[in-house]
Amino acid sequence: MTQKRIVEVRQNILSENDAIAAETRAALEKDGVVSINLTSSPGSGKTTLLVKTIERLKGRADVAVIEGDQQTDNDARKIEGTGAPVVQVNTGSACHLDARMVRGGLERLRRGAARMLFIENVGNLVCPASYDLGETMKVVLLSVTEGEDKPLKYPKMFRVSSAMVITKTDLLPHVDFDVDRCVDYALKINPSLKVFRLSARTGEGMDSWVDHLISLNH
Amino acid sequence: MTQKRIVEVRQNILSENDAIAAETRAALEKDGVVSINLTSSPGSGKTTLLVKTIERLKGRADVAVIEGDQQTDNDARKIEGTGAPVVQVNTGSACHLDARMVRGGLERLRRGAARMLFIENVGNLVCPASYDLGETMKVVLLSVTEGEDKPLKYPKMFRVSSAMVITKTDLLPHVDFDVDRCVDYALKINPSLKVFRLSARTGEGMDSWVDHLISLNH
Repeated sequence: MTQKRIVEVRQNILSENDAIAAETRAALEKDGVVSINLTSSPGSGKTTLLVKTIERLKGRADVAVIEGDQQTDNDARKIEGTGAPVVQVNTGSACHLDARMVRGGLERLRRGAARMLFIENVGNLVCPASYDLGETMKVVLLSVTEGEDKPLKYPKMFRVSSAMVITKTDLLPHVDFDVDRCVDYALKINPSLKVFRLSARTGEGMDSWVDHLISLNH
Repeated sequence: MTQKRIVEVRQNILSENDAIAAETRAALEKDGVVSINLTSSPGSGKTTLLVKTIERLKGRADVAVIEGDQQTDNDARKIEGTGAPVVQVNTGSACHLDARMVRGGLERLRRGAARMLFIENVGNLVCPASYDLGETMKVVLLSVTEGEDKPLKYPKMFRVSSAMVITKTDLLPHVDFDVDRCVDYALKINPSLKVFRLSARTGEGMDSWVDHLISLNH
């Protein structure tokens, strides 16, 4: 197979994906739903942030969740503990959610009055950057236990995201991570990126993140 | 494009890859080189482990390194500090190294007498599992700041690896990570996985990892 043919095939896959994503986006907008595609490395704390966020949104916004993972429904079970409607989508061999999977997830999700939808992507800083799921925005997480140069090494994900959340700030005293330098790198890649710094564990910084989410719904 | 066609295309890409990988493997074996394909999430500490490992191997084994990243040569520059020969391979939009990239890297690498080759893959727990690079073995890293259920959520990577290195154990007092449970999960996926627990920062556990590497060369 020639490189040219591989590129053509990839473009076909992506344009099919984008057509489905456009339908999903239109349907969600019609219902007044803000949808957030959460991406990060495996282990950056997407599920923990989501659980703590949903708890703080109680009484302020109704939330529903689509959980993506290669295997297991561990994360969906954690979300269930919050009482929010959730479905798990297993991607099998695929390293990212695509628009078709999300459409399938939405069909199964009893989202009721929920006007905020979180889509937790597979842990991967590369491929999810290329797949539009029909979301309102992508939000990328980066934990302080990772290197501060991640925005330079995986630039596309930071370019296509609307916000970056620096997580696990409670671990800052124990790691070599220069938060200011990380933010500089990220803004170099994407000057319009909103930046949040928080610890879902201690609650530090959660207020401004949750207030931002609420503002999206108005 | 039908799903069937996508699967066919993917199989063609993989079989081309495997043919190149087989050539690389034969060439390295002929030269008595042990090669290790290091994989993990972004930020699990592959480069730091590599730097500390090379320092400890000095006088015991000559090492060369191929560094894979989407963008930047940050990691290659860190390796250069050790004095080991290194080349950086940038994958651009690709989320993994493939056999062709590694072959290209080997052509540029002045590996001299090096009988141990480390290939640091792109940070990604999914796609690198599917690409044979011609290595002697894959070694997967998992830091204690990630969840202990990663082997269940990304099973293929743990299935195709010969060893798992649990990194950043110096952070254990500050995180909720059950090492024994993680090891149980990993061995459930792959009962023959060798397990190492270490902190490249404090040096704890490094001896047994380095002794293992030395044993591979004899």
